[in-house]
Amino acid sequence: MKPYKEMTREELLQEKASLEARFNEVKAKGLKLDMSRGKPSKEQLELSNGMMDVLNSSSDMLCEAGVDCRNYGIMDGIPEARRLLADMSEVPEKNILIYGNSSLNVMFDTVSRAMTMGVCGHTPWGKLDKVKFLCPVPGYDRHFGITEFFGIEMINVPLLETGPDMDMVEKLVAEDDAIKGIWCVPKYSNPTGISYSDETVRRFAHLKPAAPDFRIFWDNAYSIHHLYEDDQDVILELLTECEKAGTEDMVYKFISTSKVTFPGSGIAAMAASEANLADARRAMFYQTIGHDKLNQLRHVRFFKDMDGMRAHMKKHADILRPKFEAVLDVFEKELGGLEIGSWVKPKGGYFISFDALEGCAKKIVAMAKEAGVTLTGAGATFPYGKDPKDSNIRIAPSFPEPEELSLAAEIFVLSVKLVSLEKLLALRS
Amino acid sequence: MKPYKEMTREELLQEKASLEARFNEVKAKGLKLDMSRGKPSKEQLELSNGMMDVLNSSSDMLCEAGVDCRNYGIMDGIPEARRLLADMSEVPEKNILIYGNSSLNVMFDTVSRAMTMGVCGHTPWGKLDKVKFLCPVPGYDRHFGITEFFGIEMINVPLLETGPDMDMVEKLVAEDDAIKGIWCVPKYSNPTGISYSDETVRRFAHLKPAAPDFRIFWDNAYSIHHLYEDDQDVILELLTECEKAGTEDMVYKFISTSKVTFPGSGIAAMAASEANLADARRAMFYQTIGHDKLNQLRHVRFFKDMDGMRAHMKKHADILRPKFEAVLDVFEKELGGLEIGSWVKPKGGYFISFDALEGCAKKIVAMAKEAGVTLTGAGATFPYGKDPKDSNIRIAPSFPEPEELSLAAEIFVLSVKLVSLEKLLALRS
Repeated sequence: MKPYKEMTREELLQEKASLEARFNEVKAKGLKLDMSRGKPSKEQLELSNGMMDVLNSSSDMLCEAGVDCRNYGIMDGIPEARRLLADMSEVPEKNILIYGNSSLNVMFDTVSRAMTMGVCGHTPWGKLDKVKFLCPVPGYDRHFGITEFFGIEMINVPLLETGPDMDMVEKLVAEDDAIKGIWCVPKYSNPTGISYSDETVRRFAHLKPAAPDFRIFWDNAYSIHHLYEDDQDVILELLTECEKAGTEDMVYKFISTSKVTFPGSGIAAMAASEANLADARRAMFYQTIGHDKLNQLRHVRFFKDMDGMRAHMKKHADILRPKFEAVLDVFEKELGGLEIGSWVKPKGGYFISFDALEGCAKKIVAMAKEAGVTLTGAGATFPYGKDPKDSNIRIAPSFPEPEELSLAAEIFVLSVKLVSLEKLLALRS
Repeated sequence: MKPYKEMTREELLQEKASLEARFNEVKAKGLKLDMSRGKPSKEQLELSNGMMDVLNSSSDMLCEAGVDCRNYGIMDGIPEARRLLADMSEVPEKNILIYGNSSLNVMFDTVSRAMTMGVCGHTPWGKLDKVKFLCPVPGYDRHFGITEFFGIEMINVPLLETGPDMDMVEKLVAEDDAIKGIWCVPKYSNPTGISYSDETVRRFAHLKPAAPDFRIFWDNAYSIHHLYEDDQDVILELLTECEKAGTEDMVYKFISTSKVTFPGSGIAAMAASEANLADARRAMFYQTIGHDKLNQLRHVRFFKDMDGMRAHMKKHADILRPKFEAVLDVFEKELGGLEIGSWVKPKGGYFISFDALEGCAKKIVAMAKEAGVTLTGAGATFPYGKDPKDSNIRIAPSFPEPEELSLAAEIFVLSVKLVSLEKLLALRS
């Protein structure tokens, strides 16, 4: 098909009429499909059901340290869980602290602690007139939610195919000591799916921020969440690069098993330099007597080691891959050549990011909703929910059943086409 | 035996020599007994082992709301867990929010939120020059730790047999709007074991604090932790009393199942007015996608309802009661009539509180340590770790094996006697 913008007004109107007919047809089906959040499907959850069996009433509940996991004790996490999550984070065991069930919670608490207590002895952010964060966009709405909640000013930085625009990042952090952090999803980025290039990671390690308490919030949420066996992204390990550059205190890494085992019943961790972990432990000592060690034990007994976890992730990939491909196939077939949107084919993670014609995202999301497909709200991938171009839409293909997905994708595509046609027709009238 | 103070110097020296001989005898055994923390024993942990069996790989994982507990969703807690913990808290289900594995964490986060965001729209405490908390003493060291961590000034209020000195509490909160909170363990208080009288609870409900954002931090940690079947304390339910008085926004209640099922792998909750819960939910929305619903489900499937939980607590009592009695028997037998210390016989909770002669607590703890018995550090039951009289010692009899307890109690008593004798002898020289 030729690009819409090359069509005559007549052709556009004809196309519109035919699409509307089809749209009303699918709308009449009264579907209810959710593509709004990166939520594993039932089939994926089943993969981890065995984790419920590894601990039962007759199990040995001692961890390697000889401590009964049912009782109080061991604030840092049991040794075997630290080792497993250190491996997952690609850092030595000494650089890891195990937390509760969610890395989002660890990130929130880390910002909260910086607000009330400051970072490693520096002035608490809450005592400063202005605190700013750099936000590569499009990005993860819940990152932006945390900084917005604490009244931190957010500055958009374009996310390129190699990662954030590092020229801009380097310039901004060097100039402005109110900039205290940057949100990053370095691998299979939420939502665009890109992974940071080696050069980007090295430039992060060599940042020269004006603020001594500037920290990189490195949310490696999809570190082992590949879609393909033979085509995987590998990123440089940031803490190591920072150590080489003598900047190891500049980074907090976050991971969790929420999308490895069970969302909400996983275990989370922070990886960082010893100085940063000491800072975190100071607060943790007052915040809790310890995290859920039985759930840590359950994870370790289930996976044994990183090889076990990687084998498990292949099963996730086998379920997710056809879903991504079903959506991408529809996009390719229905939108290819029309020049009314672009997308990146991700090699991992949970999302497909779609860029519509400017000013069309909100309308597309609303139209898809009308036909029963819930998408992440347009704008959600930007700080304050404001996409300056009203163009980016995040699509999460993980949750719907495979047979529903092609239909959901069709509804999405119909919405894109109809809204784009309206825009093009309006421009000509 | 007659009181030490009525003994002659000769008699005291003779007693001292005989006690020292016995002390060296037990010291030579090289014991290692821990009476420092309210830690359930192995036997108590076994009581909840069945909770590991109620969920396995073939279980139905749907909660009453029809949501799969393995997946994301339901921030407030699953309905059946809210109902169970509402019953445990003696409040309606609408007044409860389920959190993670520790009520200490909920309390920390509640203070943290007040620091950064303020309470129900009032100025964040972190923006004020001075924030103060009332601390009934002796009290729980980890409460005082939280307020100390956040730089909140702590004011000691004597804990009487009826609860905190309410004349003092009423006067202080009415006069000083920098006083934003008070720490309370209303039932089987940590460490004295007393429960607040009905009058105390009613006076709490009718407090007229100068600060509109003053909150009572009501840590009902031992609400169902009775030692006796036929002699239990009952306290008035504060939220209800506050509702009658129109002060329902003045209280946060906290509970957890840490000492019901597994410490560290329990579930915690906050009970409060709808306005306070809305305030808490605003932060929770940014802090987490949800707490561990599988562990919530595990608790509900194990206990079924409050009757199940109460029956379970009787089993704990059967294990704990002889331990408390073993210690109290030694106290009675060895210290009765000597007038060198006083204690309350608790009807529930986890502690026995001992008041030594002034200036003796630190020395007693050090001496017991020398003979292999670890006690909570003297002073720990006071803000900043400073007991103005150096008199109070918290004893936790739950963890040691029964056969060890009499010996541990004997070591404690020997230490009390020897340190007291030294004091009395010094006074006479």
